[in-house]
Amino acid sequence: MTLGKFKRNERIGGIVKVLCDTPNKIYTLNHFTAMFNAAKSTISEDIVIVKRVMEDLELGIVETISGAAGGVRYIPKINSRETEKVLSDICETLRDESRIISGGFIYTADIIYNPHYVKKIGEIFGRIFADKPIDYILTLETKGIPLAIMTANTLNVPLVIARDDNRVTEGSTVSINYVSGSTGSISTMYVSKRAVKTGSNVLIIDDFMRAGGTAKGLVDLMTEFDANVVGIGVMIATKEPEKKMVDDYVSLISLEAITRDKRIIIHPKEDVCV
Amino acid sequence: MTLGKFKRNERIGGIVKVLCDTPNKIYTLNHFTAMFNAAKSTISEDIVIVKRVMEDLELGIVETISGAAGGVRYIPKINSRETEKVLSDICETLRDESRIISGGFIYTADIIYNPHYVKKIGEIFGRIFADKPIDYILTLETKGIPLAIMTANTLNVPLVIARDDNRVTEGSTVSINYVSGSTGSISTMYVSKRAVKTGSNVLIIDDFMRAGGTAKGLVDLMTEFDANVVGIGVMIATKEPEKKMVDDYVSLISLEAITRDKRIIIHPKEDVCV
Repeated sequence: MTLGKFKRNERIGGIVKVLCDTPNKIYTLNHFTAMFNAAKSTISEDIVIVKRVMEDLELGIVETISGAAGGVRYIPKINSRETEKVLSDICETLRDESRIISGGFIYTADIIYNPHYVKKIGEIFGRIFADKPIDYILTLETKGIPLAIMTANTLNVPLVIARDDNRVTEGSTVSINYVSGSTGSISTMYVSKRAVKTGSNVLIIDDFMRAGGTAKGLVDLMTEFDANVVGIGVMIATKEPEKKMVDDYVSLISLEAITRDKRIIIHPKEDVCV
Repeated sequence: MTLGKFKRNERIGGIVKVLCDTPNKIYTLNHFTAMFNAAKSTISEDIVIVKRVMEDLELGIVETISGAAGGVRYIPKINSRETEKVLSDICETLRDESRIISGGFIYTADIIYNPHYVKKIGEIFGRIFADKPIDYILTLETKGIPLAIMTANTLNVPLVIARDDNRVTEGSTVSINYVSGSTGSISTMYVSKRAVKTGSNVLIIDDFMRAGGTAKGLVDLMTEFDANVVGIGVMIATKEPEKKMVDDYVSLISLEAITRDKRIIIHPKEDVCV
């Protein structure tokens, strides 16, 4: 690279790429002055333009943080129109009666393993829980993992996975027995002792909630680590039972019923689309 | 939004954001003419600038595809310098002797559940397998899932997760027994019948390979779907046994040995850093 090579519009393209690649990571102005061999005042002006275009196009928020640990970061902020579109698309796809699996389940794997959808769901959870202090995203294996890692990426925090089996590769673990709220059966979940620091704030993310037994188990397990659960987000919650085993949770989609004539009644939760 | 509101540098910021948000997705020029209320020729000029800045800064490739299904797409292309840095950082972190777990394992969960690292690993696999036709990424639960969904995101294809247990939510499944190459014990893995279309091309991604028994099981399972395995990528492979149960695989990091005096000998594979 030669000196003074980049024009303003080139620098802006580069800044947008770097910021959006790692949401919620704070980059110093020096990072960009070195990248483009440009003056700090020039980069500051570039960032003002980046801010404006992201806001005008509703592509997210670029925030400047002043002070010694200061810099600039990109906060994904999926807008209400796009939130509603993503959730409506998912519901539309899930209404196909060929998805009904005996036992009152519907087949969702193609949705929750589709990177396009899970990335958007991660951004939706990121927006909903943006104001909470969060040190970890926590999920129970397996189906919630893609949503959970995408939420972790949006919020720039690590993921912790509780296992339903005690694996040698986890080292020493902390375990808890929990009651599956829908079947009443007792299972055990395990988290590696070194995975969660004492006093941490944890956001639980999962793909599906029926009675909330899994979420309750995860909450109880976190008390063993003296960690605080600051929120619970699930992609789909069933309407029944109305009373879940946890009180505070946010669901994006409500599965109302699967009728006897094989209609799947499912819709986005209105309150998350505003 | 009002007409003619956006300047060139603002459009460039917006185009970069949209393209990089969904790697390998083809956007038509009309997408951007509508977004910015600008002429096609204007957007074409913008894209030439976007192309140049991405290439000059080694941030990836922006490719224009002509014809009826044409448009423009962003192909992540992590460069060799960054590849080496990411893999060296991971190895440096993993060399800490407190990570040794009895049984010859090392604790890796904090690395492979860290969104920053798994996103980069996904881009490295994306670069390595860029020329292959790929319809699905396939992994066996659990620890490879974050790497696998990030690779799926880079390549813009869906993920398929094989389960080590037969779950009701998967519907009808196809199963296979496989021999764990390191322990010699027999396990079963399951993939939902509806997850993989006949004749598909599949890329297997996992976090760790010792003898290759899991990869061999996944390959055998895909023959049951008449699917072709076009590649196998693992983050870490042990040096021993040198002869794995699969022939063609790419590993990013080699775990040579854990010595009796608790040194972990691990390093990036040189051939993936060039």
